[in-house]
Amino acid sequence: MNTIIRVVLVLAATAMPYFHVQAEPVVRHVPVRELPVPDTVSPEMQALISAPLPPLWNFHPKSTAEWKAFAAQSAAPQIAQATTLLAKLKVKRVQSEIAGIRVYIMTPETVPPENRDRLLVHLHGGGYVAFPGEAGNVEAILMAGYGRMRVVSIDYRMPPDFPYPAALDDAMAVWHALVKTNDPKKMAIFGTSTGGGMTLAMVLRAKAEKAPLPGAIAPGTPWSDMTKTGDSYFANEAVDNVLVSHDGWLGDAAKLYANGHDLKDPLLSPIYGDFHGFPPTVLTTGTRDLFLSNTVRVHRKLREADVEAMLNVFEAQSHAQYLFNPYAPETKEAFREITKFFDTHLAK
Amino acid sequence: MNTIIRVVLVLAATAMPYFHVQAEPVVRHVPVRELPVPDTVSPEMQALISAPLPPLWNFHPKSTAEWKAFAAQSAAPQIAQATTLLAKLKVKRVQSEIAGIRVYIMTPETVPPENRDRLLVHLHGGGYVAFPGEAGNVEAILMAGYGRMRVVSIDYRMPPDFPYPAALDDAMAVWHALVKTNDPKKMAIFGTSTGGGMTLAMVLRAKAEKAPLPGAIAPGTPWSDMTKTGDSYFANEAVDNVLVSHDGWLGDAAKLYANGHDLKDPLLSPIYGDFHGFPPTVLTTGTRDLFLSNTVRVHRKLREADVEAMLNVFEAQSHAQYLFNPYAPETKEAFREITKFFDTHLAK
Repeated sequence: MNTIIRVVLVLAATAMPYFHVQAEPVVRHVPVRELPVPDTVSPEMQALISAPLPPLWNFHPKSTAEWKAFAAQSAAPQIAQATTLLAKLKVKRVQSEIAGIRVYIMTPETVPPENRDRLLVHLHGGGYVAFPGEAGNVEAILMAGYGRMRVVSIDYRMPPDFPYPAALDDAMAVWHALVKTNDPKKMAIFGTSTGGGMTLAMVLRAKAEKAPLPGAIAPGTPWSDMTKTGDSYFANEAVDNVLVSHDGWLGDAAKLYANGHDLKDPLLSPIYGDFHGFPPTVLTTGTRDLFLSNTVRVHRKLREADVEAMLNVFEAQSHAQYLFNPYAPETKEAFREITKFFDTHLAK
Repeated sequence: MNTIIRVVLVLAATAMPYFHVQAEPVVRHVPVRELPVPDTVSPEMQALISAPLPPLWNFHPKSTAEWKAFAAQSAAPQIAQATTLLAKLKVKRVQSEIAGIRVYIMTPETVPPENRDRLLVHLHGGGYVAFPGEAGNVEAILMAGYGRMRVVSIDYRMPPDFPYPAALDDAMAVWHALVKTNDPKKMAIFGTSTGGGMTLAMVLRAKAEKAPLPGAIAPGTPWSDMTKTGDSYFANEAVDNVLVSHDGWLGDAAKLYANGHDLKDPLLSPIYGDFHGFPPTVLTTGTRDLFLSNTVRVHRKLREADVEAMLNVFEAQSHAQYLFNPYAPETKEAFREITKFFDTHLAK
């Protein structure tokens, strides 16, 4: 059968052209797979991609005490990491209070002239349950160190003691206080995961409150949809080795924070908000990220609203892995992009 | 056990913190999954995402005749689609010859003043084996119609009769001829898949030949790596319902075209080339795309070379699905982005 007959037979057997559109929705069956570690990333990133699924990804805390234990186990290594980073990146940290909210102010050893009046506001990640206090500082220190700008990191209140809208209330209280003495055009807001979702929610709330907006924002792989909506919640389930699935502790944390509020409220899931008038936005994610759709959906919606928006997608990274190894080339690259973006869009 | 003991027990059982970095590379085991059709895309896109795997994705042509039959079955529906589109989008098509190469010149009914001197060069997709002649016109007509710019689509020679470098030779011959009578700063090169890879290869070759570069390029989900290198060749295998896998006809087509040349030659796999000095570039892909890594790797490498580069990733789309339904909102959005980018970066 070394002729066109084989082609015709295959097509005839299925009665379909090469591309065939089904009338009724069909679930895509994806067989079991073994994903090799890619050689298209740095050795440092290969080590992170090689990590097994986190032992607690499917842990479902049953009480306030268990949620607090979950938060506590998240904190210790991050606190140590933050301390090391302050020395390595030559960043000074001062704990302070703004509008009654605990904040950490990071100042790089040298602040170049163009950044002297610039100020960044940071929201840490952790599903609204993890990385309290100094444990939430790592990303802020990286930004201060690599971006050479001052950073105020907000230690917002969290569940189980303080559900929605406590975290956002705290963030807005700090924002309102800071814009009294700083030019918002010289300010940016940034954060990853929950911090990315909060960054978007802050802009939505600032718009609603007719408060000044920042000159730019950098939501990293933002938790823009707290419901299990968006294709990568399914396509990257168990492909992502950080969050793994919405069905683990993550979905529980969403409900714990929402505390009975509709998860599709735009201040919880900002993808349902109106992005018109948003400041220039730089987004970061990875191809294996459970929040890949959370990120690209925000990018598309921003672009539809005619907002200047840049998307950076890193090869083979799972959720927020550009934060895991401070010295990986991909980490430096992610912060270089954000720094350039801020430098372009913030007033001097 | 409603205490912190459960957290401690889980961690103790595995002797690992939440995030654990493995010393040795570990393959990621991803269990079998059923991916639902996402409700985060238009009904038109849902229909495309619902399509079963193409019956010929794993067809392995055994002879010149079978390759030609494979190409022929690809052509008929595309020729019909192109004819319909010319009428619907009010685009005029003229078949012509430039430098001895067959081309199709698409002219929209109205060309706005800013586009009067602008000219786009189009390379069609199809793995270097499919969509010959008018079958390669669909994307060029969409660009002319939605972008309201003139487009020259190159009907480059293809294997099995004409392997590498015939396709690229043809494209370069047309380019050299066109820049004699057109200002390259007012010209862009674009194409999807193989056409995206050729777009990048043309710029590499123009650089090497010290020929003028275009003012902008738009490689859509480019075949930037013809080897099975890049994470999404594995992570999106069988998730993508267009190409499905490198192990189907696609890998065979790569070898057929290369004809014994090293597949990692930058003129075959442009990801291995030097992107310094590239013109501003807009890239398009989808989260389920087998070529997601082919696209984001190009984006990252362009950015590392300080090239202005924009990445648009569409929710849940498999390979090149932004071209499949000319009237889907996502199709119009993809061309709106490319049009805006060209309008920003091409001289008038």
